[in-house]
Amino acid sequence: MEQENKTSGALKKSSRYRSRSLSASSTDSYSSNSCTGSSSEDDDISPREKIQKNSGGSNDFCVRNINQHAFGRREIEIAEQEMPGIMALRKRAGDDKPLKNAKVIGCTHINAQTAVLIETLSALGASVRWAACNIYSTQNEVAAALAEAGFSVFAWRAETEEDFWWCIDKCINAENWQPNIILDDGGDATHLMLKKYPAMFKLIKGIVEESVTGVHRLYQLSKSGKLTVPAMNVNDSVTKTKFDNLYSCRESIIDSLKRSTDVMFGGKQVIVCGYGEVGKGCAQGLRGVGCIVYVTEIDPICALQASMDGYRVVRLNEVIRNVDIVITATGNKNVVTREHMDKMKSGCIVCNMGHSNTEIDVNSLRTTDLTWEKIRSQVDHVIWPDGKRIILLAEGRLVNLSCSSLSSFVVSITSATQALALIELFNAPPNRYKSDVYLLPKKMDEYVATLHLPTFDAHLTELTDDQAKYMGLNKAGPFKPNYYRY
Amino acid sequence: MEQENKTSGALKKSSRYRSRSLSASSTDSYSSNSCTGSSSEDDDISPREKIQKNSGGSNDFCVRNINQHAFGRREIEIAEQEMPGIMALRKRAGDDKPLKNAKVIGCTHINAQTAVLIETLSALGASVRWAACNIYSTQNEVAAALAEAGFSVFAWRAETEEDFWWCIDKCINAENWQPNIILDDGGDATHLMLKKYPAMFKLIKGIVEESVTGVHRLYQLSKSGKLTVPAMNVNDSVTKTKFDNLYSCRESIIDSLKRSTDVMFGGKQVIVCGYGEVGKGCAQGLRGVGCIVYVTEIDPICALQASMDGYRVVRLNEVIRNVDIVITATGNKNVVTREHMDKMKSGCIVCNMGHSNTEIDVNSLRTTDLTWEKIRSQVDHVIWPDGKRIILLAEGRLVNLSCSSLSSFVVSITSATQALALIELFNAPPNRYKSDVYLLPKKMDEYVATLHLPTFDAHLTELTDDQAKYMGLNKAGPFKPNYYRY
Amino acid sequence: MEQENKTSGALKKSSRYRSRSLSASSTDSYSSNSCTGSSSEDDDISPREKIQKNSGGSNDFCVRNINQHAFGRREIEIAEQEMPGIMALRKRAGDDKPLKNAKVIGCTHINAQTAVLIETLSALGASVRWAACNIYSTQNEVAAALAEAGFSVFAWRAETEEDFWWCIDKCINAENWQPNIILDDGGDATHLMLKKYPAMFKLIKGIVEESVTGVHRLYQLSKSGKLTVPAMNVNDSVTKTKFDNLYSCRESIIDSLKRSTDVMFGGKQVIVCGYGEVGKGCAQGLRGVGCIVYVTEIDPICALQASMDGYRVVRLNEVIRNVDIVITATGNKNVVTREHMDKMKSGCIVCNMGHSNTEIDVNSLRTTDLTWEKIRSQVDHVIWPDGKRIILLAEGRLVNLSCSSLSSFVVSITSATQALALIELFNAPPNRYKSDVYLLPKKMDEYVATLHLPTFDAHLTELTDDQAKYMGLNKAGPFKPNYYRY
Amino acid sequence: MEQENKTSGALKKSSRYRSRSLSASSTDSYSSNSCTGSSSEDDDISPREKIQKNSGGSNDFCVRNINQHAFGRREIEIAEQEMPGIMALRKRAGDDKPLKNAKVIGCTHINAQTAVLIETLSALGASVRWAACNIYSTQNEVAAALAEAGFSVFAWRAETEEDFWWCIDKCINAENWQPNIILDDGGDATHLMLKKYPAMFKLIKGIVEESVTGVHRLYQLSKSGKLTVPAMNVNDSVTKTKFDNLYSCRESIIDSLKRSTDVMFGGKQVIVCGYGEVGKGCAQGLRGVGCIVYVTEIDPICALQASMDGYRVVRLNEVIRNVDIVITATGNKNVVTREHMDKMKSGCIVCNMGHSNTEIDVNSLRTTDLTWEKIRSQVDHVIWPDGKRIILLAEGRLVNLSCSSLSSFVVSITSATQALALIELFNAPPNRYKSDVYLLPKKMDEYVATLHLPTFDAHLTELTDDQAKYMGLNKAGPFKPNYYRY
Repeated sequence: MEQENKTSGALKKSSRYRSRSLSASSTDSYSSNSCTGSSSEDDDISPREKIQKNSGGSNDFCVRNINQHAFGRREIEIAEQEMPGIMALRKRAGDDKPLKNAKVIGCTHINAQTAVLIETLSALGASVRWAACNIYSTQNEVAAALAEAGFSVFAWRAETEEDFWWCIDKCINAENWQPNIILDDGGDATHLMLKKYPAMFKLIKGIVEESVTGVHRLYQLSKSGKLTVPAMNVNDSVTKTKFDNLYSCRESIIDSLKRSTDVMFGGKQVIVCGYGEVGKGCAQGLRGVGCIVYVTEIDPICALQASMDGYRVVRLNEVIRNVDIVITATGNKNVVTREHMDKMKSGCIVCNMGHSNTEIDVNSLRTTDLTWEKIRSQVDHVIWPDGKRIILLAEGRLVNLSCSSLSSFVVSITSATQALALIELFNAPPNRYKSDVYLLPKKMDEYVATLHLPTFDAHLTELTDDQAKYMGLNKAGPFKPNYYRY
Repeated sequence: MEQENKTSGALKKSSRYRSRSLSASSTDSYSSNSCTGSSSEDDDISPREKIQKNSGGSNDFCVRNINQHAFGRREIEIAEQEMPGIMALRKRAGDDKPLKNAKVIGCTHINAQTAVLIETLSALGASVRWAACNIYSTQNEVAAALAEAGFSVFAWRAETEEDFWWCIDKCINAENWQPNIILDDGGDATHLMLKKYPAMFKLIKGIVEESVTGVHRLYQLSKSGKLTVPAMNVNDSVTKTKFDNLYSCRESIIDSLKRSTDVMFGGKQVIVCGYGEVGKGCAQGLRGVGCIVYVTEIDPICALQASMDGYRVVRLNEVIRNVDIVITATGNKNVVTREHMDKMKSGCIVCNMGHSNTEIDVNSLRTTDLTWEKIRSQVDHVIWPDGKRIILLAEGRLVNLSCSSLSSFVVSITSATQALALIELFNAPPNRYKSDVYLLPKKMDEYVATLHLPTFDAHLTELTDDQAKYMGLNKAGPFKPNYYRY
Repeated sequence: MEQENKTSGALKKSSRYRSRSLSASSTDSYSSNSCTGSSSEDDDISPREKIQKNSGGSNDFCVRNINQHAFGRREIEIAEQEMPGIMALRKRAGDDKPLKNAKVIGCTHINAQTAVLIETLSALGASVRWAACNIYSTQNEVAAALAEAGFSVFAWRAETEEDFWWCIDKCINAENWQPNIILDDGGDATHLMLKKYPAMFKLIKGIVEESVTGVHRLYQLSKSGKLTVPAMNVNDSVTKTKFDNLYSCRESIIDSLKRSTDVMFGGKQVIVCGYGEVGKGCAQGLRGVGCIVYVTEIDPICALQASMDGYRVVRLNEVIRNVDIVITATGNKNVVTREHMDKMKSGCIVCNMGHSNTEIDVNSLRTTDLTWEKIRSQVDHVIWPDGKRIILLAEGRLVNLSCSSLSSFVVSITSATQALALIELFNAPPNRYKSDVYLLPKKMDEYVATLHLPTFDAHLTELTDDQAKYMGLNKAGPFKPNYYRY
Repeated sequence: MEQENKTSGALKKSSRYRSRSLSASSTDSYSSNSCTGSSSEDDDISPREKIQKNSGGSNDFCVRNINQHAFGRREIEIAEQEMPGIMALRKRAGDDKPLKNAKVIGCTHINAQTAVLIETLSALGASVRWAACNIYSTQNEVAAALAEAGFSVFAWRAETEEDFWWCIDKCINAENWQPNIILDDGGDATHLMLKKYPAMFKLIKGIVEESVTGVHRLYQLSKSGKLTVPAMNVNDSVTKTKFDNLYSCRESIIDSLKRSTDVMFGGKQVIVCGYGEVGKGCAQGLRGVGCIVYVTEIDPICALQASMDGYRVVRLNEVIRNVDIVITATGNKNVVTREHMDKMKSGCIVCNMGHSNTEIDVNSLRTTDLTWEKIRSQVDHVIWPDGKRIILLAEGRLVNLSCSSLSSFVVSITSATQALALIELFNAPPNRYKSDVYLLPKKMDEYVATLHLPTFDAHLTELTDDQAKYMGLNKAGPFKPNYYRY
């Protein structure tokens, strides 16, 4: 199971970095940010105090520096090449304009991949206003490129908390603007609108929510009867789940460890805590490069799967003295405790692939008897009095966000899913969805998959009429019952 | 997707062999039957005309030959050693007698593994009467051992159709016997009771159904409003699905091909039609021994999975001239046609892991221009006029049932699931289940998994109070939402 | 490291079954023998006392029953279809007759695959006389088919020791027959000739030896100065080694365990003793079907390979209490001792893939406190006083010979290698080979590989002139230095 | 097969970057150099013109800046932690001083790992003088640390060609210094001494050569009768070969591609040209993360291995239009031609893991119709007139040296091998080695392996006396015949 912080959305600076879905947050890695955003941060003046216009004369946006647009445009163009699904959707549905008259409030990470989504929504007919869902994750150049292209974007890297809410507010509350649909990542736009603009909220057609945190908040709203519009939980759609977790982590765990530590994998003993999709991906990837993998689990079904997949299922304590690498992927807290770390051997690498930053009890390492030595960005040696060194990655935050970069291909899946969810909610007949939280209809999920098959030169077989009848299926799908597990 | 014959239960001799769930049918392979059952079939006299008593003096049973009981008992004892889950359940729940007063009608394959289930139900307090769900699959010695032990068993190998219904009738309709629960495999006991003894049917507490066919019939009953009692679909429980399909087929496809053809797998090109659980298992197993595997799919999501798992997704026609082995696992019909087989190269092996016997169009091979040559049991060479030979296994029936034998371990999972479903239905408070078809509660599924973990010396981690609270979970489970896909 | 009995060739009945190379011995499994040979063994009269003629009128042979030739011929025809390499050689070199005037004494296992070799040698121009290298391994029908086809074959199943030497003698010593080359498997023909017909021995052009035992004896002869002709060690040629050991065992270990025990592999803990080619194959195959594999090694280089390949390298004692399956592949003796077996858990399977029958100390189990129970052919339960059962396969003999059948494809590699070695030795200019033991020239090894590539539809790339010059290679090979390890 | 430039050692600036063995060159990647070395290169004054002393007062060295020694020392300390083998050797043999009186001339890449080797040789009793084997690969800080520690080091980053030879000369020709052994990487020290100081050359005890190039030159010397001392080819020792090639490339190909392109591997079609150790490693690693791998080969034996390992063996032209990634690992030139690249699809990634820079015909891409666009360091888009983009990595140089960093662990193996070869040559009795090129004695190879087993917590099994006798082995090894292939 993999989750994020379920606690409230209070935006204290110290815990400001709240990871949501992996894909949307992928570009939020420190490395990418520190590269592209460094210069602009020297700016002293707040963007809110600047007067900027794009070349079209509009000033309905707020970004760090509109002049950076050319570089941002190039980033967007590169991303377009690596996002076959969302681009195919743009092409296929461009004439239909299925989002004509849609007025979208977007609140997500803002990076090149998001820009491809935004421009696709626009190509499908939508008007949009967009803010960032994270004060740190905006790529300023991309925001500039979007503003230059005429989009009302309100986001920059290193916003203050006040800036953060101001930006979202600017998206909701504008002249001649009654938004009718929300694309949210974390639930902040939804909740601001619900609280501050309840009348406006009642008029929207629905919410598309991307993150575990946001979905959790929606279910809570629903339980307490406050959810007055339909919401689509795209976080749990099949393609997104498998790609963001299983397939993506299979590669990003390798990448993260290699980039940060140059460790040789062959023959290393690794324990993966948790055998959900993320844990399955980590275990499979690491075994593929020669590691010996142990698994811990609380759920007997997942434990049985791990056994049948050829991993020893143990308690962490049983192997903690022997393993070379410890990876958490449980979604829980304090999975790796100080007591565990006291027993690790020198050189053991500890990192987190699961919950934002709770799985490893990093605070327990901030004691006077231990010395921290920063080896390089995202890599700390924590040194015991006897000289033992634990290698802690990303201070216990999500290592794949901090130490590797996700491919645009994964984001393409997520973006296409979001776009289809918007289309579905916007065009659904009045009674199809009530004021509840829904999973994406299977047919949409299948369509997202279809959009990405050409990347693999994969050729679908089509049912004959006879076969379709025999199976009781429509030739165009959906092909499986809802409880099918894939 | 894997399924069985959805057509009605008409018992024509020619299509008599109806496979249901893999596990229950596992011992139904021709090989095992032909070994253990051969001698007794020479018997001229119908068991129904024989007068037999067990050593306790009872004659409330009907088997081929009560004197074979000792050999059957030994088979049961061996099976007990290989069925840790069901034996653990027998031990753990033996004192509670959770099935006290349960009166079970069983209608399943009858073999050593079933006997372990029957005797477990008895140990848990149930009274049972049992018939076979297939006219060919009874192991006579095991039936004799059960009869000798005092169980009212009505079954023998090679029943006539009339025998078949007579046996089931004997289980339902007996003196001083009002059955209150049904354990069915295919739905024949359910349907006989419903039609012939509707009053009796209304009094039962529920039905546990094991097979795809039976589940399908239950859903149809439910739709048409004729299902007046709750029914439990154990066919789609997690542990059963994964074990019967993914994990079991990963091994049995290798075993089936090797035993029947002695083919060397390394470097062979294989196409697996269908990438459901069975197809996934076949592909994984065969790649593990060095095959190059192609996949066909109709469902874009499964196709995307196959791609990400590293298989080329093609249409059958694209590779049919090159592949060495063709395996069907779609649940559909005429997946491999005569036209395909005309294009195969000489020596190509064709077999079916999916639907009972429809996937390969075997009838299309029974033309005058082709010669059939039986090479050994379950292996035919079909010879084209130019000398080309196709190697057809099990005449297109399920090759793993015909050419390999499933381990008792798999059956242990299924049996434990059935027993728990019976306990749940029998003990559920009146309003928990309505007259509908239910999946096994997740907690039961988890319990079945738990029962089998000791086999792997797998050690579950337990949540701390703090962690459980943080996750919003009960420490004893269930651990996942219902839509979780594992 | 894998080896066979290095002790002398004394043919005591009790230890009569001496396995040599896996491939040549493959058909020597008890199962296949017991099937095809059972009826003919009832014959009371020794073949030596029978008067038999083939349909051509010749009586220069001695087999069990010439009338069985038709069935043997069909077996040979089936084998031909599965031996692409040797058949390609027969076709390609048929016109050249590179073995014209060769007079070959053959002493090998006699089965359908050998028959394909014999008839290929004949097609290439050779005259042959053939005996069996093992008193039990002859397939009588095949011997009959060869005799009917005019070959001077002297072999039957269940020869006495005296018969054995008489048969070889008949091959060496015949009218108008000065043999000029030997194809040996175990060295018995070589040694009989050397001792009994030393003058004749000096006139031969060379010896091709197939087995570890025979090669060992040749090196001893060479050391002691008694080897007066060149000998070719085909046992250590690349293609043969890799196929007979690594690739073949990767599959046959799975097959052997499955056929004999129906064990489910997923999640089972296995220890493979020895990480030579056989051990590597076993470990890879079993991991491919979901086992957790441990390795023992005495050689640090192989141990390092095992580590890097992702296996824990342990001493047997460290895991003996936990493992489900113990496999020996060391070539050594007493690798698994009574002390080890005393510690195993109940249900542990023990089998040998390495040395003929020495690796497991089976004798230590024949004590009064232990009970043996034969479960089925090749499967014994050894029962400890406390009820613990160890499952011993093939009484410690080579399990893949006893419990599975090797594919003809593997034998095709070996046969082609033998044939090419004969051609090389027979046609070599006088000074190319001295009286020593040689490995097959790399070019021949490469040619054997080439013959088998079409089976895999594998397409070789050809060097351009420029590339060949750059690499300093001949475009036709050889492509590697002699010390290359593949 | 993997090789390096066999052409003469002429040091033209343009082709200055000559990769030798992977491990020694590993730190020679552009990335690491560009990070650590950037500042110091701004220095205007040549080190030869500077006057520098270490804190001990010595000036018998020449480095960029002695003041950088502290940072270099820290790098060395980190490397020590990751080089268990060479550190174990230092500890075990420290008391014996097996290199007492050895006077070593070293000419290798100079980086932290080399420093660990140098200080180990010193700890074992040797005196050393050291120069760089590559004008670009010196880590200035490390050189400073060595100089500060009293070693006579002559090397800096970005030497001129004249500097290069001057530095080597300074190692050979010094007061009171008659070197008696050479540790060379590429053969430049050997050849300079042979030509310029022939009398001195005759007095040395031997040469240890690390690189393919250097070994090639030694064999040429030997052929032409000019090699008057024994030389040890450590390039072809078992442990080094397997680690530098198979195991290391299995990981570094993944790392290189990921760091430079962020490509998602799952489902990608890859062709690996060449199935030697490097190709085997690449294929295995990429399959492990979900790629579909094709292989090209010129050698039928390797092709057969690839087939049995489950890869389609094709000619490049057959799949060039479909593949997503092309990797060369042949050791040859012009393996990928312009004609091939004209056929690739847009987005295809092309990189080289084999020969220094000849495998991809990069020059053919420098035509006026194609546009090059530098995307980031080591990544170029080559753009066709129709917009097609090929992604070329490291301009065709070794991608793992340019785009990833090798772990110190691999270098540890190589360093330990070099040290043992020095010990062997230095201490061998006079007649053990003649003036020829030798492979490392197997026992030494085994010892290197032994030194690295503790890293994996791998436990060797020891032969009993009885077993050793039975196998004809010494309990301490060597354990295999020389022709054993591992």
